[in-house]
Amino acid sequence: MPINPDAVGAESEPVEHSWTSKDALLYAVGVGAGTDELAFTTENSKGIEQRVLPTFAVIAGGAGGGAFSKIGEFNWAMLVHGEQAIRLHGEIPVEGTVRTVGRIAAIYDKGSGAVIVTESDSVDAKTGAPRFSSRSAVFIRGEGGWGGDRGPSAGNIIPDKKADHVVTYTTREDPAPTSRLSGDRNPLHSDPAFAAMAGFDRPILHGLCSYGFTGRALLHALCESDPSKFKAMEGRFSKPVFPGDTLTVSMWVDGDAAVFRTETQRGEVVIDNGRVEFG
Amino acid sequence: MPINPDAVGAESEPVEHSWTSKDALLYAVGVGAGTDELAFTTENSKGIEQRVLPTFAVIAGGAGGGAFSKIGEFNWAMLVHGEQAIRLHGEIPVEGTVRTVGRIAAIYDKGSGAVIVTESDSVDAKTGAPRFSSRSAVFIRGEGGWGGDRGPSAGNIIPDKKADHVVTYTTREDPAPTSRLSGDRNPLHSDPAFAAMAGFDRPILHGLCSYGFTGRALLHALCESDPSKFKAMEGRFSKPVFPGDTLTVSMWVDGDAAVFRTETQRGEVVIDNGRVEFG
Repeated sequence: MPINPDAVGAESEPVEHSWTSKDALLYAVGVGAGTDELAFTTENSKGIEQRVLPTFAVIAGGAGGGAFSKIGEFNWAMLVHGEQAIRLHGEIPVEGTVRTVGRIAAIYDKGSGAVIVTESDSVDAKTGAPRFSSRSAVFIRGEGGWGGDRGPSAGNIIPDKKADHVVTYTTREDPAPTSRLSGDRNPLHSDPAFAAMAGFDRPILHGLCSYGFTGRALLHALCESDPSKFKAMEGRFSKPVFPGDTLTVSMWVDGDAAVFRTETQRGEVVIDNGRVEFG
Repeated sequence: MPINPDAVGAESEPVEHSWTSKDALLYAVGVGAGTDELAFTTENSKGIEQRVLPTFAVIAGGAGGGAFSKIGEFNWAMLVHGEQAIRLHGEIPVEGTVRTVGRIAAIYDKGSGAVIVTESDSVDAKTGAPRFSSRSAVFIRGEGGWGGDRGPSAGNIIPDKKADHVVTYTTREDPAPTSRLSGDRNPLHSDPAFAAMAGFDRPILHGLCSYGFTGRALLHALCESDPSKFKAMEGRFSKPVFPGDTLTVSMWVDGDAAVFRTETQRGEVVIDNGRVEFG
């Protein structure tokens, strides 16, 4: 068992990560923003100021400052993204530099695999002002069974009633080749040979790509397309999404928050137990 | 008439332009390469080496070394790309730096506008070995009428017989937001307000994007998908392409060359009088 459960609490050195306007534009097209979202896909449209999609925090945070490297060696083909949460302390600027410290928040033993929870806090590199925080859980198949804590299982409860808002997007047949250019080059999302080794018929979409599509839906339905109103988002990746799938995001509003889930045209819930804060 | 016809012969200072593996990948997805062209869209697929699409020369050449700035001031909304030729001196590496010198090769007076022809030669910045050359003609509406030479009008003749090869690609509804990230941020390709000012119902695709789609078709049909066999390509942009259009490339082979044209689903020829050399 090459994963080290005692790594919990380990913290990364502060890591600086910078982004440019182009990085933000590339991210936006990678999560499906197009010609009807010019504020996110262009920087020079008449009367439209470039803004940054809130879920870009998962990119701008520079993969959580590298805390993940503390957990030891494992087979990357066995890793799938389990959960992702972000919290924004103000709108993300079009370009900037943050200093990020990450930590291993928890390691759980699910028997068939291990869950690694990392958290990170990113501050503006110049002013030290908090920019955003991130929490991420990944599941690594085959790395469990050391008799450790299974961890919590309940998430945000989705009400058994009609949703208040429903938004549907179709992912393109080929979003992965674009989405991966925002940083995650895991060949699970592009190489059929690697995907087969991981047990999939074909490459699957990045969890963070579905997350970005979902974030766009939340932003437009709940925040009047205004990133400054988008405060926090969390969700659990419950099934793989394949390029070309249609993603339908259903939202149940409760004051300045909503729970949500994202389903495919197959009726499979792919992001579950979601919650977003806005206002 | 703010364009200076006497600029013919003016040469740019040598300009260095570098590109990375990521630039080549981004270009490939911008011209429609997807998951069935992993050599061009990924750098880490098992047993597949990353290679560069030959038409990437138009990007790697750094917009011709800046010779274009010699012609004076004009309204960019009036500019459309007229012709584009490239000649490759060997396969383009995945990353590199070239030194490019550009020159104003000709300025023609078409009455309703001016045609500016620029040429550039790019050499490897380290070794000085020739990498690629480029020739580009742009049409600027409203800038003609000074009584200058009209220039040549004939191009490569398309035979009146059945094509030897036909390849069809569909551009995505939204390729422009990705394609523009390879360098050409002209809002004609993204901003409806700007496109309207230029007289179009909606933003049109970059000519160089259609050129890249066409180059992919030529590469796969005539060069066994091997960029080292692709020697040269030229063509004339004869009609605008709109995002979402289907592009059908027809090729007539004659030894180690072929003439080609590209048509949309409307039957409009959008790249005409094309010629490619291979072998």
